[in-house]
Amino acid sequence: MQTRESCLQADRCDSLARLKALFSLPPGVIYLDGNSLGAMPKSAHARGTQVIEQEWGTGLIRSWNTANWFDLPVRLGNKLGRLIGAGDDEVVVTDTTSLNLFKSLAASLRIQSQAQPGRRVIVSERDNFPTDLYMIQGMIDLLQQGYALRLIDEPTQLEPSLDDDVAVLLLSHVNYRTGHMHAMAEVTATARRRGILTIWDLAHSVGAVPVDLTGAQADFAVGCTYKYLNGGPGAPAFIWVAPQHRDRFWQPLSGWWGHSRPFDMAAEYQPAEGIRRYLCGTQPVVSMALVECGLDIALQADMNHVRAKSLALTDLFIDLVEARCAGHPLTLVTPRDHRVRGSHVSFSHPQGYAVMQALIARGVIGDYREPDVLRFGITPLYLGFADIWDAVEILKDILDAGSWDQPVFHQRTAVT
Amino acid sequence: MQTRESCLQADRCDSLARLKALFSLPPGVIYLDGNSLGAMPKSAHARGTQVIEQEWGTGLIRSWNTANWFDLPVRLGNKLGRLIGAGDDEVVVTDTTSLNLFKSLAASLRIQSQAQPGRRVIVSERDNFPTDLYMIQGMIDLLQQGYALRLIDEPTQLEPSLDDDVAVLLLSHVNYRTGHMHAMAEVTATARRRGILTIWDLAHSVGAVPVDLTGAQADFAVGCTYKYLNGGPGAPAFIWVAPQHRDRFWQPLSGWWGHSRPFDMAAEYQPAEGIRRYLCGTQPVVSMALVECGLDIALQADMNHVRAKSLALTDLFIDLVEARCAGHPLTLVTPRDHRVRGSHVSFSHPQGYAVMQALIARGVIGDYREPDVLRFGITPLYLGFADIWDAVEILKDILDAGSWDQPVFHQRTAVT
Repeated sequence: MQTRESCLQADRCDSLARLKALFSLPPGVIYLDGNSLGAMPKSAHARGTQVIEQEWGTGLIRSWNTANWFDLPVRLGNKLGRLIGAGDDEVVVTDTTSLNLFKSLAASLRIQSQAQPGRRVIVSERDNFPTDLYMIQGMIDLLQQGYALRLIDEPTQLEPSLDDDVAVLLLSHVNYRTGHMHAMAEVTATARRRGILTIWDLAHSVGAVPVDLTGAQADFAVGCTYKYLNGGPGAPAFIWVAPQHRDRFWQPLSGWWGHSRPFDMAAEYQPAEGIRRYLCGTQPVVSMALVECGLDIALQADMNHVRAKSLALTDLFIDLVEARCAGHPLTLVTPRDHRVRGSHVSFSHPQGYAVMQALIARGVIGDYREPDVLRFGITPLYLGFADIWDAVEILKDILDAGSWDQPVFHQRTAVT
Repeated sequence: MQTRESCLQADRCDSLARLKALFSLPPGVIYLDGNSLGAMPKSAHARGTQVIEQEWGTGLIRSWNTANWFDLPVRLGNKLGRLIGAGDDEVVVTDTTSLNLFKSLAASLRIQSQAQPGRRVIVSERDNFPTDLYMIQGMIDLLQQGYALRLIDEPTQLEPSLDDDVAVLLLSHVNYRTGHMHAMAEVTATARRRGILTIWDLAHSVGAVPVDLTGAQADFAVGCTYKYLNGGPGAPAFIWVAPQHRDRFWQPLSGWWGHSRPFDMAAEYQPAEGIRRYLCGTQPVVSMALVECGLDIALQADMNHVRAKSLALTDLFIDLVEARCAGHPLTLVTPRDHRVRGSHVSFSHPQGYAVMQALIARGVIGDYREPDVLRFGITPLYLGFADIWDAVEILKDILDAGSWDQPVFHQRTAVT
């Protein structure tokens, strides 16, 4: 597709194109940051009004029953589970990705301490999203039981690192910065053969690439609903626990909502059967209710179609940038190989920060990640081929004109 | 006040009465459950629309800067701090009460393990809100370091229980069931003299009774924004850390938002200076934004006026129930002594559950707590004296007619 017309033609043939109308996107914006904060489903307006005015304002405390707030985390979890190869009662929407990592790490270390107590190493990647590493560090420091974090510097070091000292492997499926995607099934199988439990962080894959946790025989997974699932800013995260582990251990953030009979008000904690034991305290109902708007759109799309479109769009973006912006110091950071590419594309540029500010000023919203990375999230649910064309043309304009070399306001960039 | 007219007269003289107009209350309802889920401020409608449609829908990722989402937890924390005797940068609004208990418990145990490593007992009350006990149990089980939970059965056992084995005392300021209020300053002073750190759960006191954490020389406090602070269903909770402890320890739920330079994406956790280190993962922005609506109303009220009105209303409620419902098997559970009474009133009744269902059916919304407790939350910001009169008359009607003795729908009662 080397013309805008050919892009428009591809949009006309795109079976997912109709979903764009379900989102509210600001005029004049090409939004390439849906991997940081997804766009707003149009249905969020009505759902927000309903939960604030009717469920809270009018229903008040009665809404725990009449609006079924009590079942919301599991009901949404069951819906979300269909996007990641999980069965019913295996996923809850709750808390934050960081906290769900803490729960799954505690559970997996406990399982290992009983099965293979000599294993005291947790493996992850130095380039993993920092909060994942911070949560491991917090756990190690809290436990004071001789656990250690082993960080690998690139994917090729992964296999050699998985020795007999390793209890848990914690990886992001798709890397937040580079867009590199691990082969989940193969990596999990290797870990499994070596007696290692695997925790997957799906923040940058759920809703954008097919995920099959059951097929991969993974152990735990966590992820985010506000990126490709379009759940709203800071919307509650999720946790998946493989059925064979789910009822073996009660995670230590054992609040009332995970209790088997929370309304008995017993002084002793007794975990609920099933995934509800991974709940802790009272959840932010308004933010959680909005998650369903995004989930309901994602469930309309066949994830294999989403993946095919994602690869086509990211291929197009890479090709166009390399063709149209040739001569500028842009270096592709994201793998070209489809098998290891997620749904965002990153290029490094020596003035990456300033270039991104200029793009944003022109309505092309991507983001910047240290040290020099321009990151472009490609969300197949609401982006088309012509959007990609237009975005690259604006990038070309900026680079050709050197217009990024202007004073720009200081933007404190945001999460993930 | 033994007539409805005298109650109306009291309402006319009430300097806080004007605040009722700032809340949206459903017609035909007398809402006596604001200690479980507070009423909706009218401003929540516009704020909800703003944060969903403008900040999320239009601002998208830019709102981290333009709508200042990044500073929201501390900004709201500073506002909330004014209600509990805290200074700036001592409170953050974040996560849930349960999780904030976990953080404060981890921090206080760490401080004690360095100062007085032999102390391995955590004291609380058997009748404390269960999630507080569950979080302690989860922590003890996680650490495997010989910690033990010691539960007292009534307040008089508190002082003798505070011996040299005790590291931490964790109490609810006002008991969720009985409405009993601890003398915070005296209890904290006793604990302090004996080398014990104190964590206060303010869920049932903040916004309803004056709290002075600094004056009491307390160590940690947590609490809830969706009860007397009217922050919305499941709205994020808060944590306060005394300045002398705040920077001594990084709590173990160490996610990106508590990092000193979160956008450097460093692999090593480095806690922020100040209270921000008590943040963990990305917060539910929509639910959090709504907290400000309730806070802004609470800050219009002098807490001493709120307290005086609360005591007058709870006195009136007790007096009227005992006078108008004499002969029915109601037993006051809440202390009569003002010094140890919070802002809700509980009566036990052998058929408590059915009586409460009949009340709710007549529009008097209180709640029921095991084993036999009718609980009535008295929220001075939106209840008047005539409301109390009318509620008691309906209770009298129901008891006199025996009309509670009907089949009622099964209500799964809700949180706290």
